[in-house]
Amino acid sequence: MRRVVILAGGVGGSRFTLGVREALRRGDEDFALTVIANTGDDLWLSGVRLQPDVDSLLYALAGQNDTVRGWGRAGDTERVNAELQAWGAGWPWFTLGDLDLGTHLARTGWLREGATVSDVVARLNTRWDLGARILPMTDAEVDTRVHLQDGGDLHFQEWWTRHRAALVPTRFENPGIDRARPAEGVLDALAAATDILIAPSNPVVSLGPILAVPGIADALRAADAPVVGVSPIIDGSVVRGMADVCLPTIGVETAADAVARHYAARSAAGILDAWLLAEEDVALAPAVAAAGIDAHVIPLWMSDLDASAALGAAALAVSDEQGRPGV
Amino acid sequence: MRRVVILAGGVGGSRFTLGVREALRRGDEDFALTVIANTGDDLWLSGVRLQPDVDSLLYALAGQNDTVRGWGRAGDTERVNAELQAWGAGWPWFTLGDLDLGTHLARTGWLREGATVSDVVARLNTRWDLGARILPMTDAEVDTRVHLQDGGDLHFQEWWTRHRAALVPTRFENPGIDRARPAEGVLDALAAATDILIAPSNPVVSLGPILAVPGIADALRAADAPVVGVSPIIDGSVVRGMADVCLPTIGVETAADAVARHYAARSAAGILDAWLLAEEDVALAPAVAAAGIDAHVIPLWMSDLDASAALGAAALAVSDEQGRPGV
Repeated sequence: MRRVVILAGGVGGSRFTLGVREALRRGDEDFALTVIANTGDDLWLSGVRLQPDVDSLLYALAGQNDTVRGWGRAGDTERVNAELQAWGAGWPWFTLGDLDLGTHLARTGWLREGATVSDVVARLNTRWDLGARILPMTDAEVDTRVHLQDGGDLHFQEWWTRHRAALVPTRFENPGIDRARPAEGVLDALAAATDILIAPSNPVVSLGPILAVPGIADALRAADAPVVGVSPIIDGSVVRGMADVCLPTIGVETAADAVARHYAARSAAGILDAWLLAEEDVALAPAVAAAGIDAHVIPLWMSDLDASAALGAAALAVSDEQGRPGV
Repeated sequence: MRRVVILAGGVGGSRFTLGVREALRRGDEDFALTVIANTGDDLWLSGVRLQPDVDSLLYALAGQNDTVRGWGRAGDTERVNAELQAWGAGWPWFTLGDLDLGTHLARTGWLREGATVSDVVARLNTRWDLGARILPMTDAEVDTRVHLQDGGDLHFQEWWTRHRAALVPTRFENPGIDRARPAEGVLDALAAATDILIAPSNPVVSLGPILAVPGIADALRAADAPVVGVSPIIDGSVVRGMADVCLPTIGVETAADAVARHYAARSAAGILDAWLLAEEDVALAPAVAAAGIDAHVIPLWMSDLDASAALGAAALAVSDEQGRPGV
């Protein structure tokens, strides 16, 4: 049994996870796929609890995602949202789809009845055959605040969805994360993993919160499984999202090697054994290797499921090369 | 300025309120109409706060109510509700309409942001031209529990909507109501009223909670305005709802005179100056009068707006006869 664990954010993480799942399905081993999802961009809106990354992963794995818009449920409508706007409630720049609201209401109701975030996500896992299990990184509410140069701060979703990351951030903060604990199953999954993959998600606001939950980075360092990361940066640019705006706040260049050096080698108290760079970044491979991280240059563009599956297969092959346990 | 205050529950209260508003509109006086709404059947469901009686009044006054089903918004759909069922969340026997959910989400969001129930209802009052102002009876959460013979208890909505009042109740309880305070504006409205009308709503679970909020019954007794009640019982039967199942729990017969004697005359430390009975109950008028309450026999069936307006006009005329202040 190949036990693969992916650490992932939302949209990019979903695409990568679909690729890994496809690669595993095409392989000849039994497998169990676990995704540890960022919950740092969760939020309360109009009284309900939203988990954008969990839901992106959930809908993508279930084949229920809107692949045209790139977010939410396929075939969704906005009848409730129009009412919310008429009431002057909610955020005019943040649309809640009707089908999507079903998820938010179910989640909020369960939370109100005393369920933990782990309980909630476990329930979300049961409706569709996902071929994977999603775990939240933590049960704690550690919603991301974005601090700005003028001293103000706002919720990550407002910064991103309303302002399209146009306000220059000085710092991203997840208040209380230093007291958070990994969610149920997270440390066990990492300890039992045969392969640990770091999705090409935002290193600051997606992977950053996951790695900031006390215990998770230590578990990666202590894991028997190789830890293989995939660069979210290709040729000095983000593939999607706004990592280029986020990376400067932690003093990291928007470059495939810089991100690898930020995660750092396990041998240097970091988390990585290997790093996948795009062919466009072949010149940066030596800098990665110099940091003690095995560098592998392969096509990173996940333009369709076959391309994503090829990337997933490549990541798993690198893990094999690293000597995954049980082989 | 005629300042009319109605104490009301949901559906019957709405119909009566529409009749009073229509009678006032047809009259030649300026008027301000205030409805003090029962919030005893409010509830949390799927993480959102519902206020069935407030919303029934709101939608009816706004002309947005579904007059065919008798509840919810006209033209509503159930897209979110279907999702909730698919998640195994919510109550399968309690439908949340999509348009209606817009109200619940707006309300819940405002509450979460720190608004009081008074603040919330004040906001709900502003969207449509209601020709009236709705006030909640209290800001406190005093949701009704129904105690059963077997010692169990359940939320009023479950008892009513799921079990159609078929489980024999022994007692209705609004936990914490003895520590509740009248909502903002309630006591002022009663003190300044020229007419106070008790709608033909359920005396136990609609008017009961309103009158149980400490200070409200005293304010009725101290008011300058006459207090005129309308019987919810015609010919020994409830017009709608389940008052016949509720009244035995407080030892009151399902009869027009028994309900009046339950409310009791102001002169006997009760709240009523006058009581309107249906023509079918003319034989009960002497018993009402014997209790020190002016009895008036008139048609009570609110079969359409004209009939409701005639009832409203009759109630206001009785108030005039009682000598409303300012005339």
